[in-house]
Amino acid sequence: MIVRNIEGASAFPFAETKNFAPRKLTVKMPPLDQSTIERRATIAEDLRRIVGKESVLDSESERRPYESDGLAAYRALPLLVVLPQTTAQIASILGYCHTNRIKVVPRGSGTSLSGGALPLEDAILLGTARMSRILEVDAHNRIARVQPGVPNIKVTEAVKSLGLCYMPDPSSQAIATVGGNVAENSGGVHCLKYGVTSNHVCGLEAVLITGEIIRIGGAFMGAADGEFDLASVLIGSEGLLAVVTEISVRLTPEPPVARVISLGFRSVEDASRCVGGLIASGIVPAGLEFMDRRVIDAVASMLGELHPPEVQAILLCELDGIEIEVDTLIERVGEMTKQFSPAEVRISKSDAERELLWRGRKVAFGAMGKIARDVYVTDGTIPRAQLPEILRRVDSLSKNYGLEYANCFHAGDGNLHPMVLFDSAKPGDLEKAEAFGADILRACVDLGGVLSGEHGVGIEKRDLMTYQFRAIDLSQQQYLKCAFDPQEMLNPGKVFPTHCGCVRTGRLPTGNGDPRFAGVPRF
Amino acid sequence: MIVRNIEGASAFPFAETKNFAPRKLTVKMPPLDQSTIERRATIAEDLRRIVGKESVLDSESERRPYESDGLAAYRALPLLVVLPQTTAQIASILGYCHTNRIKVVPRGSGTSLSGGALPLEDAILLGTARMSRILEVDAHNRIARVQPGVPNIKVTEAVKSLGLCYMPDPSSQAIATVGGNVAENSGGVHCLKYGVTSNHVCGLEAVLITGEIIRIGGAFMGAADGEFDLASVLIGSEGLLAVVTEISVRLTPEPPVARVISLGFRSVEDASRCVGGLIASGIVPAGLEFMDRRVIDAVASMLGELHPPEVQAILLCELDGIEIEVDTLIERVGEMTKQFSPAEVRISKSDAERELLWRGRKVAFGAMGKIARDVYVTDGTIPRAQLPEILRRVDSLSKNYGLEYANCFHAGDGNLHPMVLFDSAKPGDLEKAEAFGADILRACVDLGGVLSGEHGVGIEKRDLMTYQFRAIDLSQQQYLKCAFDPQEMLNPGKVFPTHCGCVRTGRLPTGNGDPRFAGVPRF
Repeated sequence: MIVRNIEGASAFPFAETKNFAPRKLTVKMPPLDQSTIERRATIAEDLRRIVGKESVLDSESERRPYESDGLAAYRALPLLVVLPQTTAQIASILGYCHTNRIKVVPRGSGTSLSGGALPLEDAILLGTARMSRILEVDAHNRIARVQPGVPNIKVTEAVKSLGLCYMPDPSSQAIATVGGNVAENSGGVHCLKYGVTSNHVCGLEAVLITGEIIRIGGAFMGAADGEFDLASVLIGSEGLLAVVTEISVRLTPEPPVARVISLGFRSVEDASRCVGGLIASGIVPAGLEFMDRRVIDAVASMLGELHPPEVQAILLCELDGIEIEVDTLIERVGEMTKQFSPAEVRISKSDAERELLWRGRKVAFGAMGKIARDVYVTDGTIPRAQLPEILRRVDSLSKNYGLEYANCFHAGDGNLHPMVLFDSAKPGDLEKAEAFGADILRACVDLGGVLSGEHGVGIEKRDLMTYQFRAIDLSQQQYLKCAFDPQEMLNPGKVFPTHCGCVRTGRLPTGNGDPRFAGVPRF
Repeated sequence: MIVRNIEGASAFPFAETKNFAPRKLTVKMPPLDQSTIERRATIAEDLRRIVGKESVLDSESERRPYESDGLAAYRALPLLVVLPQTTAQIASILGYCHTNRIKVVPRGSGTSLSGGALPLEDAILLGTARMSRILEVDAHNRIARVQPGVPNIKVTEAVKSLGLCYMPDPSSQAIATVGGNVAENSGGVHCLKYGVTSNHVCGLEAVLITGEIIRIGGAFMGAADGEFDLASVLIGSEGLLAVVTEISVRLTPEPPVARVISLGFRSVEDASRCVGGLIASGIVPAGLEFMDRRVIDAVASMLGELHPPEVQAILLCELDGIEIEVDTLIERVGEMTKQFSPAEVRISKSDAERELLWRGRKVAFGAMGKIARDVYVTDGTIPRAQLPEILRRVDSLSKNYGLEYANCFHAGDGNLHPMVLFDSAKPGDLEKAEAFGADILRACVDLGGVLSGEHGVGIEKRDLMTYQFRAIDLSQQQYLKCAFDPQEMLNPGKVFPTHCGCVRTGRLPTGNGDPRFAGVPRF
C-alpha cells in the first residue's frame, strides 16, 4: 500500500504522508465497457429515482474524492457515486445494476490499503457511509446490530457505559467502518488475544447482486447452528460476493485492567527470538508489537528520545484481565524474557503511563511518513517461529534493491508490515519498492506464511495469488465467487488474477497455470 | 437423536441404552439408483484395485455395523464399505465415483447424532477410520497435523507431555474422530470459553468429488490470509462438500489450574436465571453445565445421592487459568450467584474433588438410558437470556404430549439437549417423541435461536430447515453446495430438504416455499 490522507480524517495513520500526484493505473484491469460509460446520464437519472437526487454524485469534482482508497498509487474515477441510506435502496440499486449489466464497487470509508475499493471507470461506486446508525444494543445477549457505515470506534463508544466494547481495533478505527472491517476481516493490535472481525460477528444481512436480501446467523452466541457458514465466506471477501447491509457484532466486557511492559533489546534478533519464546511460554498478551531502531528514531523526532541508544528494537507487550492476574502475568513476562537480555524494561503503573508507552507505537507510521519522502508498506503473515528468519531476509532484500526499510508490526500474530522507504519523484523508485514488497510477500509464503495479514488482496496482491495458491485451490475459491456473482459484476478485477469464467466457459473457473485453463483470457 | 452403542465402544455416552430393533426408514430419501445397486460386484472389484482387497467390505455381515450412526432409529445398509488409508486412495475413489456416478457417504467413527452418516443403499460408505495417524506435532507453532480418522482424545494424549492440549472436547471424544468433528463443527463442555472446532482448525486438505485435492490455510496462526474462507465452509458442512483428508489443528497450553463450583438451586427457574446473570457479569467460565432433578435422580441411582433433596437443579461452573486468577473468579462467582439463593454450594479443592463433581455430569446420559425405556435427545441453541422461557415452553410441551423429559445441557452456550423419555415398544410413542423434539426446536427458532447446537442437521432436522431459513437463504446455501458438488453425489439427502437442482434446472437451487421453485421435485 502507499497511503495518503483520506477525506481529511486526521486519525488515519499516514495522515502526514505527502500526497501522490495522480498517475496512470499500472495494474491491468478488466476491459472498460464503453456502452455503460456512454449511458452515464441515464443511469444517474435511474439511480436518483431509487435514492433521491442528493445521493447520486455525477460531476467530476464530486467523484474525485473517491478516486482511490488508502492505496493512493492507484486511481480511477468511478462512473458515478451512489450513497444509499437503506437496505431496500441497496437491493433496488443492485437489482437495477444486475438487470442493466452495470458493475458495482462497494466502499466503506475507503481506508482499505490494497486497492480493494479502487473505483472502475465503468462501475458505480456504492458507498455505505450514510448507513451509519447503530440499530440496537442488546446488553443482555451482548450484541449490537449496526449498519455497515458505522465507524468502528463508534460501536465501543456506544456501549462503553455498559462496561462493554467491540474488540476488533484496526489502526484506522476512527474512520474505518464496520462494513469495511467485515469486507477485509480486519484485525488490530488486540486481535492476538481477542481474534479478528470474523470472531466478533454473529449475524449478517447482505444483498446479492440480484437484489435479493439474505440473512445469516443472528442474535445468538452458540456453537454450530445448522447452516453452511455463509458468514465466514462473506467476511473477508473484499466486496466480491455481496453488499453487507447490517451486522450483528459481539460485545465484550472491557478488561478491568490493562498494563504494558516495554522491552528494549540490543538487537532485532533478540527481540524477534523473544516473541517466539513468549508465545511458546503459553502467555497470551492482549497485544505484542515490534518496532525497530529506524522507527524509534522517527518517533523520537516527534516525541523526543524515549529509549536509550543501545536499544535496537522494542517489544510492547500488553496484558489485560483482572488486576491480580495482570500483576502475575507481568511478573512472568519479566522473568521469562530475561534470557533474551533486554537492555531496558519499563512497566506501566497507571493508565497514563500505559498510554505514554503506546504513544510511540501509535504515531509510528505517521512519524515514518514525516522522515521519508515516500513509504510503501507491505502486509504478510508468517508462523511466529519464522520471525528471525523473515527479518533476516527482508534485510538482505533491502541490500539487493538498495532501498532502506523500517519494521513496525503485530509481532504476536506474525503479521509483518515492513515499510520500504523510497522517493516517488525518482524515476523507477516506486517500481523498485513494489518489487521489493512483492519479494517480501513471496518470502512469507516460502516460510509457510501467507500473502496477507489484514490489508486484504485487492489489486495490490492479486497477481501474487498464484504464488500462494495452486490452480485447483484458486479454482475452488472462484467457484465460490460463481455461487454468489457468476457474471462478475461485483468489484471485478480484484483478488483473482483471472476471470472466474463461470459464465464464459460453462462452470470452469480460469485458475492460472493449469493446462485446463490454457487460452482463457486474463485481465 | 436416538442413540445406541456404536462399534462396541463403551465410552459412548449412551452405551447403556437398549438397542433398537431395526425399523423401516421413515424419512424420505432420494430415490434409489437401481443400476448402481446392480453393479455392486463390479464396483467392489474396481475399488479393490484402488485400496486393496481387505479394505472393501461387501458381505452383508461386514456392512451391517455401518447401518446407522448414533441416530440408531434410522438405518440402511450401504452398497459397499470402503476404508482407504491415504489421501491418494480417497482421490482415486472419488474420481472413480464421479466418473461412474456413484454416490458417496463419508463417515468418521459414526458417533454423529443427527443421521449425517446414515448410509444409502445405492452409495458407497467411505470410512476414514484407517487414516488415524498423527502426522506432525509442531510445538513451536503449536500445531498438530492429523489424519481425519484420529480419535479426538488422541490429539491431546499425543501433546500432553508438552503441556499442550486440543481444546474441542465433545462428549464422544474417546471415539469421535477429528475428521468427524470437522464435519459437524463439534463443540464440547469447554467450547464456552475456548470455542468450537472451527476456532481450532488452521488448515485442511480435502478431496473434491472430482478427485482433485485442495489445500486450505496451513501452519500459520494469524489474521486474515488472503483467501475466501473455504475452511469455514468445509467445517460443519456434514460431508456434503468434500472429504477432508488432513487437518492442521491448533494446540492450546493446558490451563495450569481448573476448579469447579457446583451450585444447587431450589428451582429450575433460579438456576436458569443464574446462567444469564453469570454470563452478563462478564465472567467466562471454562464450562457451565445444567442438570435438573430428573437427571440428578438418574445419576443418584448409579453413584448414590450427591445432593440434598431440596436441590431441583444443578449448575456446574468450571473456571480455569493460573491459580490466583481461578481463586479470585471462584470467589466472584460465589458472591455474584448469592442473589439466586443457591441451596448448596460446593467448590473443588483438588483435581480429585473436581473429578468427583464432574462425575455426575459425565454419567448423566448413560444414567438416563438406564432408568428410561428410551431417550430421544434434541439439540438446539437459544440466546442465553431466553433460557428461563425455553425451559417453561419445554415443560408445557411435555404436558401437551404426555411425555416426561429431563434436562442436562451446555447452559453457558445456550445449547439445549432436552431428553424426551418414551417407550419405543408402545405404538406411536416414538412418533410422539419426534414431534415433541421438533416442537422444541421450533420454539428455539421462535426465541431467536437456531435448530442445532452441535449435533448437526443430518436427516433429523433436515425438514425443519425451512422453519429457520427463508427460501432465499436456503438457496444461497445450496449455491455453495453447487460450487463443490453440483451433481449431489456427496452425502445426498442430508441437510437440505430439497434437491440443490443446479444440474437439473440450470443454476437454480430449489429452496422451499419460493414460487420460483414450484414444481421442482423434493425428496
